[in-house]
Amino acid sequence: MGVVVPLEEGKKKSASVKPLVDLTKADMERVNQLILSKAGSDVQMIPEVANHLISSGGKRLRPMLTLAAASMFGYKGDSHVKLATSVEFMHTATLLHDDVVDESDLRRGKSTARTIWGNQASVLVGDFLLGQAFRMMVDVGSLDALDVLSTAASVIAEGEVLQLSVAKNMETTEDDYLSVIRAKTAALFAAAAEVGPIIAQADKAGRNALKSYGMNLGLAFQLVDDALDYGGTAADLGKNVGDDFREGKITLPVILSYRRGTTEERDFWRNAIEAGDSSEQNLQHALELIQKYDALNDTIGRAVHYGTIARDALAPLPASPYKAALLEVIDFSIQRVS
Amino acid sequence: MGVVVPLEEGKKKSASVKPLVDLTKADMERVNQLILSKAGSDVQMIPEVANHLISSGGKRLRPMLTLAAASMFGYKGDSHVKLATSVEFMHTATLLHDDVVDESDLRRGKSTARTIWGNQASVLVGDFLLGQAFRMMVDVGSLDALDVLSTAASVIAEGEVLQLSVAKNMETTEDDYLSVIRAKTAALFAAAAEVGPIIAQADKAGRNALKSYGMNLGLAFQLVDDALDYGGTAADLGKNVGDDFREGKITLPVILSYRRGTTEERDFWRNAIEAGDSSEQNLQHALELIQKYDALNDTIGRAVHYGTIARDALAPLPASPYKAALLEVIDFSIQRVS
Repeated sequence: MGVVVPLEEGKKKSASVKPLVDLTKADMERVNQLILSKAGSDVQMIPEVANHLISSGGKRLRPMLTLAAASMFGYKGDSHVKLATSVEFMHTATLLHDDVVDESDLRRGKSTARTIWGNQASVLVGDFLLGQAFRMMVDVGSLDALDVLSTAASVIAEGEVLQLSVAKNMETTEDDYLSVIRAKTAALFAAAAEVGPIIAQADKAGRNALKSYGMNLGLAFQLVDDALDYGGTAADLGKNVGDDFREGKITLPVILSYRRGTTEERDFWRNAIEAGDSSEQNLQHALELIQKYDALNDTIGRAVHYGTIARDALAPLPASPYKAALLEVIDFSIQRVS
Repeated sequence: MGVVVPLEEGKKKSASVKPLVDLTKADMERVNQLILSKAGSDVQMIPEVANHLISSGGKRLRPMLTLAAASMFGYKGDSHVKLATSVEFMHTATLLHDDVVDESDLRRGKSTARTIWGNQASVLVGDFLLGQAFRMMVDVGSLDALDVLSTAASVIAEGEVLQLSVAKNMETTEDDYLSVIRAKTAALFAAAAEVGPIIAQADKAGRNALKSYGMNLGLAFQLVDDALDYGGTAADLGKNVGDDFREGKITLPVILSYRRGTTEERDFWRNAIEAGDSSEQNLQHALELIQKYDALNDTIGRAVHYGTIARDALAPLPASPYKAALLEVIDFSIQRVS
């Protein structure tokens, strides 16, 4: 495979999420209000835990995708706000459960809910948010949207279990890794984008275009996330270089370095990841090997590949500010690593 | 409040779940097949974990309620089988998450999934089953049934969080306790029963009758469960006397004994439950106090109270074998403690 260096293409250099933010600003304010209202409960611990995570400064890319995807097909009602909120709740529930599963203490530089309120509250408040998400979808009343989002919920959980079962196994292939990120990340991006045209009653071609856009954007997004964990200069990443390494997560930079390595280097990876020796010294050596085999650039190259598919998925749709903003998000997602 | 001893009424003495089992036998075979098929996944750990719990010998009372409640209104289609399976999956997902939350090692005398596959798998397979439950509901296509079941999912999770926040607090009132069991147990019984008339397109009166029946049956069921934990002779309970005591759970036998006790006795309860001194000696003393204040009989008295409400809820409906079987389940649920 060739090395693709997307940043050499000067025209995409300053891609930004700002056009998408601006276009969805008014609707996102309603989403944020609905988030607060639907995370409310007489049981005090629920809004406490939920708001801890909700206010922790994520970009809320997923609900913006839903809003933009509905508006670009001319949708004028209220349902896109409810579905966007459902999507964000599904994402938040996943994060709460992920932190329990990964035994994480930090997320975006803040203590995770489980370290403050315990694993119990994280599991149960996650369940509550998932329940609230489904109630909002039911309230919208579109069986097609319900089908897409409930299927995504199953697929995400299935992907997380798959990730558990390949954990710390250095024989994980790139295909295995892709199956995991397709399920645990890209499926929700795809569903978030697809429900837009669904409630706008767009035709099948419009639905498929947005679904494919979301799926491939999600893959590119996760690939870049996994590359950033071993480098990059993104200041606002909120996680430290080497977090995945210390958790023994098998991501593409590791897979490529392992498979391209010498026998000794493969022994190193097995010792570091499978046996869990993630000392600072071993992290430094891992970074050297990743550099040696160009594994970060090639991980970003894969992201560019999926970004291109996402771009082509939208190609047949008429030009509009929404389309332009969604296309720019592809470049933005990839250029985070710069 | 008076002491009600239901077993003095000889006519109800031999109440059984058998009529309900017999009436739903053919449909339950289809439910069991659907359970196996929808708990399936290419990710091997999913059916392993799911089948461990599914095959562990619960009575499957909840799906039988759905089947009977649909059939008593003349329902002839397939959707009741899908909804009954959804209900059982919601219940199974709750058990998987509960065992993580309670850090339980045994359920019905068998190792819990979390002790075999870890907390991670229990959380994630629970999420998967919940996702599959929603997919089946969506497949049925009744927005009313979706509304009832998705609301129940939120309420159950909310009840579990409420239970967390009253845990080990001896000032918990009977009302607090009722709020917990109404949400975490009775809400699913109510939903399981209500979706029967919904898909049978029964009128609002029929829906309300079954909902009220399910809610009050669920309260009676949980009250008896909590009484059984401090006595009773039910051989097939699959849990040991004093499990709740050892976990510091505040149930009605404890609440009544505490509130009726002397200052010294209240100190004892606080030490045992709040400070966690659940030695065998303390369990014996707790059993003596429960006996002294007639707290088990009065807990069962409350169950009889809700059982009566459940019975009256069905009273206006025409006589049928289904109605008779559902009424007998009320007595059966209460007579488990004998």
